[in-house]
Amino acid sequence: MKYQPKDSSKTPRFCGLRTFMRLPHVKTTENVDFAVMGVPFDTAASFRGGARFGPQSVREASMLLRPYNLEMDVNIFDHCSGVDYGDLDVVPGYIHETYDLMVKQLKPIYEAGVVPLCIGGDHSITLGELRAIKEVRGPVALIHFDSHTDTWDNYWGMKYTHGTPFRRAFEEGCLIGDRTIQIGMRGPLYQPGDVNDSKDLGFEVLTAGDIHRKGIEYTAEMIQKTVGDTPVLVSFDIDFLDPAYAPGTGTPEIGGFTTWEACEIIRKGLKGLNIVGFDLVEVAPSLDAGEITSFAASGILFEFISVLADKKRMESNK
Amino acid sequence: MKYQPKDSSKTPRFCGLRTFMRLPHVKTTENVDFAVMGVPFDTAASFRGGARFGPQSVREASMLLRPYNLEMDVNIFDHCSGVDYGDLDVVPGYIHETYDLMVKQLKPIYEAGVVPLCIGGDHSITLGELRAIKEVRGPVALIHFDSHTDTWDNYWGMKYTHGTPFRRAFEEGCLIGDRTIQIGMRGPLYQPGDVNDSKDLGFEVLTAGDIHRKGIEYTAEMIQKTVGDTPVLVSFDIDFLDPAYAPGTGTPEIGGFTTWEACEIIRKGLKGLNIVGFDLVEVAPSLDAGEITSFAASGILFEFISVLADKKRMESNK
Amino acid sequence: MKYQPKDSSKTPRFCGLRTFMRLPHVKTTENVDFAVMGVPFDTAASFRGGARFGPQSVREASMLLRPYNLEMDVNIFDHCSGVDYGDLDVVPGYIHETYDLMVKQLKPIYEAGVVPLCIGGDHSITLGELRAIKEVRGPVALIHFDSHTDTWDNYWGMKYTHGTPFRRAFEEGCLIGDRTIQIGMRGPLYQPGDVNDSKDLGFEVLTAGDIHRKGIEYTAEMIQKTVGDTPVLVSFDIDFLDPAYAPGTGTPEIGGFTTWEACEIIRKGLKGLNIVGFDLVEVAPSLDAGEITSFAASGILFEFISVLADKKRMESNK
Amino acid sequence: MKYQPKDSSKTPRFCGLRTFMRLPHVKTTENVDFAVMGVPFDTAASFRGGARFGPQSVREASMLLRPYNLEMDVNIFDHCSGVDYGDLDVVPGYIHETYDLMVKQLKPIYEAGVVPLCIGGDHSITLGELRAIKEVRGPVALIHFDSHTDTWDNYWGMKYTHGTPFRRAFEEGCLIGDRTIQIGMRGPLYQPGDVNDSKDLGFEVLTAGDIHRKGIEYTAEMIQKTVGDTPVLVSFDIDFLDPAYAPGTGTPEIGGFTTWEACEIIRKGLKGLNIVGFDLVEVAPSLDAGEITSFAASGILFEFISVLADKKRMESNK
Amino acid sequence: MKYQPKDSSKTPRFCGLRTFMRLPHVKTTENVDFAVMGVPFDTAASFRGGARFGPQSVREASMLLRPYNLEMDVNIFDHCSGVDYGDLDVVPGYIHETYDLMVKQLKPIYEAGVVPLCIGGDHSITLGELRAIKEVRGPVALIHFDSHTDTWDNYWGMKYTHGTPFRRAFEEGCLIGDRTIQIGMRGPLYQPGDVNDSKDLGFEVLTAGDIHRKGIEYTAEMIQKTVGDTPVLVSFDIDFLDPAYAPGTGTPEIGGFTTWEACEIIRKGLKGLNIVGFDLVEVAPSLDAGEITSFAASGILFEFISVLADKKRMESNK
Amino acid sequence: MKYQPKDSSKTPRFCGLRTFMRLPHVKTTENVDFAVMGVPFDTAASFRGGARFGPQSVREASMLLRPYNLEMDVNIFDHCSGVDYGDLDVVPGYIHETYDLMVKQLKPIYEAGVVPLCIGGDHSITLGELRAIKEVRGPVALIHFDSHTDTWDNYWGMKYTHGTPFRRAFEEGCLIGDRTIQIGMRGPLYQPGDVNDSKDLGFEVLTAGDIHRKGIEYTAEMIQKTVGDTPVLVSFDIDFLDPAYAPGTGTPEIGGFTTWEACEIIRKGLKGLNIVGFDLVEVAPSLDAGEITSFAASGILFEFISVLADKKRMESNK
Repeated sequence: MKYQPKDSSKTPRFCGLRTFMRLPHVKTTENVDFAVMGVPFDTAASFRGGARFGPQSVREASMLLRPYNLEMDVNIFDHCSGVDYGDLDVVPGYIHETYDLMVKQLKPIYEAGVVPLCIGGDHSITLGELRAIKEVRGPVALIHFDSHTDTWDNYWGMKYTHGTPFRRAFEEGCLIGDRTIQIGMRGPLYQPGDVNDSKDLGFEVLTAGDIHRKGIEYTAEMIQKTVGDTPVLVSFDIDFLDPAYAPGTGTPEIGGFTTWEACEIIRKGLKGLNIVGFDLVEVAPSLDAGEITSFAASGILFEFISVLADKKRMESNK
Repeated sequence: MKYQPKDSSKTPRFCGLRTFMRLPHVKTTENVDFAVMGVPFDTAASFRGGARFGPQSVREASMLLRPYNLEMDVNIFDHCSGVDYGDLDVVPGYIHETYDLMVKQLKPIYEAGVVPLCIGGDHSITLGELRAIKEVRGPVALIHFDSHTDTWDNYWGMKYTHGTPFRRAFEEGCLIGDRTIQIGMRGPLYQPGDVNDSKDLGFEVLTAGDIHRKGIEYTAEMIQKTVGDTPVLVSFDIDFLDPAYAPGTGTPEIGGFTTWEACEIIRKGLKGLNIVGFDLVEVAPSLDAGEITSFAASGILFEFISVLADKKRMESNK
Repeated sequence: MKYQPKDSSKTPRFCGLRTFMRLPHVKTTENVDFAVMGVPFDTAASFRGGARFGPQSVREASMLLRPYNLEMDVNIFDHCSGVDYGDLDVVPGYIHETYDLMVKQLKPIYEAGVVPLCIGGDHSITLGELRAIKEVRGPVALIHFDSHTDTWDNYWGMKYTHGTPFRRAFEEGCLIGDRTIQIGMRGPLYQPGDVNDSKDLGFEVLTAGDIHRKGIEYTAEMIQKTVGDTPVLVSFDIDFLDPAYAPGTGTPEIGGFTTWEACEIIRKGLKGLNIVGFDLVEVAPSLDAGEITSFAASGILFEFISVLADKKRMESNK
Repeated sequence: MKYQPKDSSKTPRFCGLRTFMRLPHVKTTENVDFAVMGVPFDTAASFRGGARFGPQSVREASMLLRPYNLEMDVNIFDHCSGVDYGDLDVVPGYIHETYDLMVKQLKPIYEAGVVPLCIGGDHSITLGELRAIKEVRGPVALIHFDSHTDTWDNYWGMKYTHGTPFRRAFEEGCLIGDRTIQIGMRGPLYQPGDVNDSKDLGFEVLTAGDIHRKGIEYTAEMIQKTVGDTPVLVSFDIDFLDPAYAPGTGTPEIGGFTTWEACEIIRKGLKGLNIVGFDLVEVAPSLDAGEITSFAASGILFEFISVLADKKRMESNK
Repeated sequence: MKYQPKDSSKTPRFCGLRTFMRLPHVKTTENVDFAVMGVPFDTAASFRGGARFGPQSVREASMLLRPYNLEMDVNIFDHCSGVDYGDLDVVPGYIHETYDLMVKQLKPIYEAGVVPLCIGGDHSITLGELRAIKEVRGPVALIHFDSHTDTWDNYWGMKYTHGTPFRRAFEEGCLIGDRTIQIGMRGPLYQPGDVNDSKDLGFEVLTAGDIHRKGIEYTAEMIQKTVGDTPVLVSFDIDFLDPAYAPGTGTPEIGGFTTWEACEIIRKGLKGLNIVGFDLVEVAPSLDAGEITSFAASGILFEFISVLADKKRMESNK
Repeated sequence: MKYQPKDSSKTPRFCGLRTFMRLPHVKTTENVDFAVMGVPFDTAASFRGGARFGPQSVREASMLLRPYNLEMDVNIFDHCSGVDYGDLDVVPGYIHETYDLMVKQLKPIYEAGVVPLCIGGDHSITLGELRAIKEVRGPVALIHFDSHTDTWDNYWGMKYTHGTPFRRAFEEGCLIGDRTIQIGMRGPLYQPGDVNDSKDLGFEVLTAGDIHRKGIEYTAEMIQKTVGDTPVLVSFDIDFLDPAYAPGTGTPEIGGFTTWEACEIIRKGLKGLNIVGFDLVEVAPSLDAGEITSFAASGILFEFISVLADKKRMESNK
């Protein structure tokens, strides 16, 4: 038995409730390879909020997704079964309560070997995922797409914000430092240390300049090299994209990437990796224009899922 | 057993898939008093379209609805069980195929005595509802809120558009002419006949001027008087409201009504009536501003449901 | 021979070039009773500009206009012939050059006895109209709908801005002071004199408070009483309406009027008057929301034209 | 020495940094009657956030304010000196830390007898104000404009949200229950108790229905009667206004009030009262349309300040 | 005699009715080389509609076009005469009636040897053009820019939608299969066959990946090679562009092209070809952001016209 | 003593009045290296206006700027002191009066050796800057980023518009022709002369095609080569960027540049030059989408300032 999207050649895509990609909304881990879910928590945003409505708008945009990936030549549901798991419960305004709820809800999913795709919410949610993963399987590798490192020590004296999760995660033993790579950093920083700090934690850092100058192939190789076959979480902050491609986010930074570049890096950089989870964060629909941010986000999730399906195919072909 | 909304004091209202009012999405008529459903068909719009996305946006706005109606002093789910039935299948671009599908899908609902609340879609869908009702129980009364009579004979020679459903419905024997009332007509017309035509069909017509000058109480009384205890369909075109209250619609007309006025007319004019169905049509989110049209629409549906609950209470108190 | 709109029951209203009300675009005064024209000049705006695109957006909204006025029971083109005259040439950035061009272009129209309906543009254009009228027929009465008196002496030392046209017009002998009425004044002022100044010029002033408290009938009577049978120009600043009804304007003031109220005042207050011209100014589409300002403007122009047609009918019935 | 706005007849209103009403930005309480300040905290919003950008957008809209109030016939700066005090420091995401900061920053202002006008932020900030006031002068009366009572006990188990401040304030001894009046309640509620709860605390409650049916004069009298000469805080949630007049807010409720109605209630209901502070909350610019919410908010603050000036005039005339 | 735009150094470009590029609106084929016209039909859209307002918004954006093409060093009106022909009549909601009207209206244009530039409308209109061309001159070559092949067999069982025109056209003998090239395909598909189907019809297909990797020169050469000197129709779906460059369309697909890339492909790939018609479809202004889609569309039409002028120059230089 | 931004790790960036980059608002030239100021004049716009609100929106976006430039490895405030100088006074609607005011206000700034960064306003303001510079230090070099040359002789007979400043500046002896370079020209032109005219004045012109084909390094070298060590003004029209990156401007032209390309050209092309002033013009917030134009503008100003700081560092290292 396999969960797959409703057939859009039978009913129009704008018909029916908005589940991700028109997948069935089933709260199960049985016979499921991946589960898309919302984590509508945006209390930790340091500038503009609104990402609590990210899951809803990404689902809306995902109505346009179809099952076959032309570039990877893979039909997702030939190899995978997937569901829309709904949203995780959160407590708006209260980060610690939310982290506790996240861990409680995510652990059974990771334990079941299902790959969750969490739609944020702000970037603080990744710490909740990493804590749950750690409880299930210990520290993991990380591939982090973003314009910011999010490894500040604190904001206004507060240790838990959307600018600090990766430092916290490292301190809590959730991350393997030298299996962690951060990609896309750019924009004005507080000080040189903003990037150096990540390096001090052992992280590989590819700045936007590195990628613009050395190219997609290089970037993909660096990801593969850093992560190897370590189990890995992939975290994608939508502000990795240039604001022209993703205006609907809290802290946009100019000089970023196109969706074509992002998708190519994903397709090549993530191919065959041992991925335990994905997230895509910081989509804030009330700041969007022409819904392009939500369309970009749903397209990137489609590439993530395609990578999973491709891996399954490779495994079944062995 | 009773279907009712998720408890928003337990989980935030922005958590989870968007069903109307956070009701369970169950495609059943068992133990159900009312069923909210989308009819995302907008092919028949004569000017600006986009109402196929009405159901989605009204559901989104309905997250804010709570169960107790202060003005009517009624808690809906003390008296009613309700579900989100999802959307009816439609065939975009093809009105006759869509009508056939509508009748097929709606008949069992009317037969089960469940009251459907159809969210359009454009106003052509009301003919589909009326055909289904006719098959189940014969011609009915009609309460029609709108700025237009929608009783033109044809548009560009075509008999089936969103400007003609009530003439067609009358011709097809779906309506009891002298139990039909049209409320809110205004704006430039093609000719005097536009209103006279309705009168020729036996319809009662209250123009916007009538209502602005004679008031809400008068309007409510005229509705009660016209309909009496005949089974009645209520059809609400969102352009009954002034464009300041509902810009997100295809053919707005200035000089209209506030949401307070609309709700008062509903609460008083519909109280105790023998209502077999409701619809709310012509919400076009891509033309909206500040989402106020969708909020207005969801609030009006709330009043409709409250009227149903109030009726149930009256019946159970007998 | 009569100029009238294309028949929208034959071709959809969204088909074809945007002329006002789908009238023929003919640059003639022969066989013409009224001529709609744009005056896309907004250099004189003191705060937010953009009204140079007013004519285009009002024309776009006017696609929805049909020929019969329900409230006045008059079919415009039974009594009138009307054209879209296009836009007057203006010189953006240069007010004096623009005034000269306006007078040159408007004089032949007033001389031909055609009633122009000028779509602004900012409120400075009314001085151009009044100068042309004065040359043709001397000083006239004025009915001025607005939230501001626009009778300041100067702004930043400059005598010609959109806040000064009526003082200049009075000084230049274009206006008959005691046949001038200003309606709708409200909002914070610089000083009490802002209204008193108008009174010193002999103008009647009805503040928003007067109208809200004394009502539409009173307002209509005051207009009729002030103007009598003197030839009169009607100038309508869209910010007479409340920002909820007309956000797309440069200097909105809360506490204003609904479109129903505006239309009723026009229908009753202007009935039978000897009107030589109309203008509707300060629609700034880039500041609009849901296009409601443009719809309001086109609806108000429709009432103006209906008043003309009603007058013609009265005259032909004598 | 008196602080007053820059003269807009000398420099255009769009020139210069955005202080409220073009007042000097001075962080002093010397020679100051009122001080406008932002409290950009929106962590406690239960549905849509974004009010942290309220102060900025209200300041932007306030560029249009001039010093003379036509309806009250008072020139504010003949009687008052006022400053833009800037924003209070807050800690986004952390409500208790923010409350502590608020009390620390507000106490010296209340102690100096300066009247603060706090621009929110969400409605949770009022508890911070009330705590500071209590420390300075004990419990006070309250006039609360809103569509919600905000006296829920908790949301998702959390005691501190924007839906609970007035219950908390009462429990903490900040409010005099029978000197507290809540005005404008409407919309769907969780249960009858939502309003009854307020009554149990001794609060007077005027629902939207009460006001729509009994009128502005009645409402003003009820305010005056409830408050008497007790020192009073005035708290205005922008969702008191109808969404047509204020779409840019987190939890809009249809069936509300116009800006004219709000201003009239303020002018008459607050006249002569012993007011110790004001706030205006829940303006969320990213949800606004045509900036009308910010214009409405700045206009309401103008009426608040005018009431203060009017009181000063009355006192100086004694 | 030659038709050319109004001189914008004489009158401001925002003055006057909106014809394409300020060309004269003349419904003639005499002395005309190209005729721009709207085909405002969007009934066949499978997801988001609104392209019926495409012609109006592209005309509005085209006000900025000037006559000289810097990259091609050609002044269009040195070589061509062009008009705005207005819009073709269509029947909204009824595709077969519209096709019949299209053929009837287009045939005389093709017969006169005038090159029509049709502004859609959705992509179904291309079948109408191809039918008219076939009647006049038999099957032709096709250059099709799009992110989708639009060669599905049917949608929900319906043979005529905006996803099927090129399969229908091939079946009806309008197209020469091996003279047809489709360019830009990307995004999730239903199945591999979506592209293979086109290949089965003999079409050349360049996917987005092909173009991103092999470049503009390669793409231009493939076009030239496929088409040769066969008479050819050029059809440009605006979603060929990336959503960052064209958000205002019904079914955007990420990973697309910039306007620079599109214009370069047109300038080089179409140079010297024997072009019988152009269309540009799927611009939906109500979904646009910052009007960039309409500006992009008008700029692409400018390149089309420049290619025509360049061809004329080459011919006259022989 | 040094002026630098408020520390955003201490107070949230959305707290407080909007000065550029959170710099102190001080109207001084003492101890100041650079001074950011608004010049909110947009009277000279030939098509869409609104740039008078550019300074406000760029300041709002600049809240996100931090002091360290990752690509240039420079911390601005290690080497520079900077202030927000507020806005220059202007006279809306009157260009000559505004030029006089500009010269009067700018001269002391240039005399003090402070580098002003002027935020427009439309492009006409650059002539005001150049006149002031000429009075202080004679003619200078110019680096002009734009899609238009702005060297037309006149518009509608008027010599002073935003399309003519560089011709006027050359005629008035403000510019050294062969030290002037114009970069990015593209889009339809009136005639070949539009670019040739610039060449006739001795200006170097790099069209968009030149840059797209020859690359960033070439462009940077051409700038360095043309300017050498001559004192130079840098003028950046935001429409140098592609409309996808900067929709919020009056006359967008497709086929433009990304923010990454613009920043790279600035970093490399301007490095080490003897820069006397900058401006960034034509940001029109009311035409923007997702605020991306303002974010782009503030990011480009950040690169300008970084170039200044880098130069200071180089000088202090000598």
